Amino acid sequence: MKVDGKNMRPIWYDPADDRVRVIDQRKLPHNLVEKTLDNLDDVVAAISDMVVRGAPLIGVTGAYGLFIAARNAGARASDNSVLIHAAEVLRTVRPTATNLCWAVDRVLGVILGCDTATQRIIAAREKAGEIAELEVENSRQIGVHGLPIIEEIAAARQGEPVNILTHCNAGWLAAIEYGTALAPIYAAFEKNISVHVWVDETRPLNQGSRLTAWELLQAGVPHTVIADNAGGHLMQHGMVDLVIVGSDRTTASGDVANKIGTYLKALAAHDNKVPFYVALPSSTIDWDITDGFTQIPIEERDPDELRYMPGGQRSVNTILTPESSPAANFAFDVTPARLVTGLITEKGVCRANADDIRKMFERV
Amino acid sequence: MKVDGKNMRPIWYDPADDRVRVIDQRKLPHNLVEKTLDNLDDVVAAISDMVVRGAPLIGVTGAYGLFIAARNAGARASDNSVLIHAAEVLRTVRPTATNLCWAVDRVLGVILGCDTATQRIIAAREKAGEIAELEVENSRQIGVHGLPIIEEIAAARQGEPVNILTHCNAGWLAAIEYGTALAPIYAAFEKNISVHVWVDETRPLNQGSRLTAWELLQAGVPHTVIADNAGGHLMQHGMVDLVIVGSDRTTASGDVANKIGTYLKALAAHDNKVPFYVALPSSTIDWDITDGFTQIPIEERDPDELRYMPGGQRSVNTILTPESSPAANFAFDVTPARLVTGLITEKGVCRANADDIRKMFERV
Repeated sequence: MKVDGKNMRPIWYDPADDRVRVIDQRKLPHNLVEKTLDNLDDVVAAISDMVVRGAPLIGVTGAYGLFIAARNAGARASDNSVLIHAAEVLRTVRPTATNLCWAVDRVLGVILGCDTATQRIIAAREKAGEIAELEVENSRQIGVHGLPIIEEIAAARQGEPVNILTHCNAGWLAAIEYGTALAPIYAAFEKNISVHVWVDETRPLNQGSRLTAWELLQAGVPHTVIADNAGGHLMQHGMVDLVIVGSDRTTASGDVANKIGTYLKALAAHDNKVPFYVALPSSTIDWDITDGFTQIPIEERDPDELRYMPGGQRSVNTILTPESSPAANFAFDVTPARLVTGLITEKGVCRANADDIRKMFERV
Repeated sequence: MKVDGKNMRPIWYDPADDRVRVIDQRKLPHNLVEKTLDNLDDVVAAISDMVVRGAPLIGVTGAYGLFIAARNAGARASDNSVLIHAAEVLRTVRPTATNLCWAVDRVLGVILGCDTATQRIIAAREKAGEIAELEVENSRQIGVHGLPIIEEIAAARQGEPVNILTHCNAGWLAAIEYGTALAPIYAAFEKNISVHVWVDETRPLNQGSRLTAWELLQAGVPHTVIADNAGGHLMQHGMVDLVIVGSDRTTASGDVANKIGTYLKALAAHDNKVPFYVALPSSTIDWDITDGFTQIPIEERDPDELRYMPGGQRSVNTILTPESSPAANFAFDVTPARLVTGLITEKGVCRANADDIRKMFERV
């Protein structure tokens, strides 16, 4: 997507020096900083410290991580054991998003079929690039399939803006291009449909106020940042026409693990009869599980992410709580399928239940 | 309540120099700063800028505001017009909490019955002090009546801590002594019942992470600060036994206006069968209205409260959003009576409906 007129992605391979680079998303919106991932440790740190985040991007970064490991191992790696180990390391950096395992396993599968170190390197790089392009196409299709939902509301609104609430960042920063939740919004905006986005701040790491607001600002999409606390009130007063969020892992039965707080918005949407859609590429579906509550591990991150606020342009950390007060920092929650109006996927829109999801992906 | 072993209240009259002083709650938890309210402008600014906040405390501050206006007018005020005007100004500083009008009108009523300027000053000061003591007694009684709710859960928990979630600050900082929502918790703690409080951060002004955490820390009550987004997840996993919040205005039919985000927690409590109680003195009941959604004005505050984060100990403001992204800052929301398990008042606990509330206060 365009940043100050220049095409950018949150991760890219640079053939000029054979390096993988990412946007350091911790520095946004105040500074646009590129970071080179030189080795496996860099990749692990980038995923773990949320230099990169968002389920599809975590997957693509993991895929490139295996390429980086293969390249650095070079001819020294007489067999695949180094890369099998690298894959094991990468798979467990963050537990909730299923894309990480999915993408790493796809690259590993290709590597295991190679005979030479050179073949492995090339195959890993090409497969990682292929996964990136697949996610781009997935996002594009999510935009295509989600657009009619917004068009229908727009028709009823008769020129008044369609007010769409989103939580966390599920735009191109999370998904290479377009995004998941934001893809239908960008598609509508490009078709000159009047949209306005309520951007949940998304505590504690402020992906909404930092990343989604920045993305929408770059694209010129009207938006307003709100506290995570505000969505219920807005829905009670008819100020939200539609909720669209992304997903880090979706069960085969339609339960949706997404950024902590998503469930509260789904409850409010249900209580106020506001449609609540989840936009996701099939790479975030975990076909092996059907119970989001017992089967999806919910990451618990460093409490200091909640206790301290990184200091904007001046990079001064400020503490919010008393020094001695402990904090807990659960990163995701699970929204039960019953609260989801529909899933917007690259194959189309379906209801959030096992039969409809299977049919959509022809897994009948 | 004790602060470092010394008894403190969030507002007090100092007879030594005839001055009213408050704790500047904007500076907590990092600095305990007293502020003298010298004139009506000081009082208006203290309420408006949230030097003082919390429904009962706003009421008491408004009451003392009328005393300060009377004292400063002195003998020059040949009639009551100056004080009637001051009351009008005070009533409208913040719109949602009903206590402000309630307390100001009580002091004004006493003033209007006085013949001389000196009488007016003394009567206003005494009435303001009386209202403060009334709120202290209300809070004490809320603790008495709320305690059995916690005791009953504690009995079932068999020594495991009772996990209580609260939103915003409804402790002694909001209500002179004990608090509203925190009063039953302090009462349980004093009886050696094992309690643990989940403290909602409460964006955007962080009354939870700044004030409630500080209060509980001073009292030694175990607590953990969480993002406002986290409560739903905790309830889904059985980690919350009880929710208690305060109220800024309660309708005669039991709808509860409280800090923005309360409604989302009520929905999650309802969805997970967690008891959801609202603790309030009768001074926050608005007997004239029965529909919280159409009849309670919801204050919209400066969006910069959301966009900027005041900088902890070093007092550096940091911006969270892109410079150009707008923000909206609704301060309260309304939780419908159907989601409230019960109201804990100074008269006892009742269900949140018009009949039970009327009976409780003998307004049948």
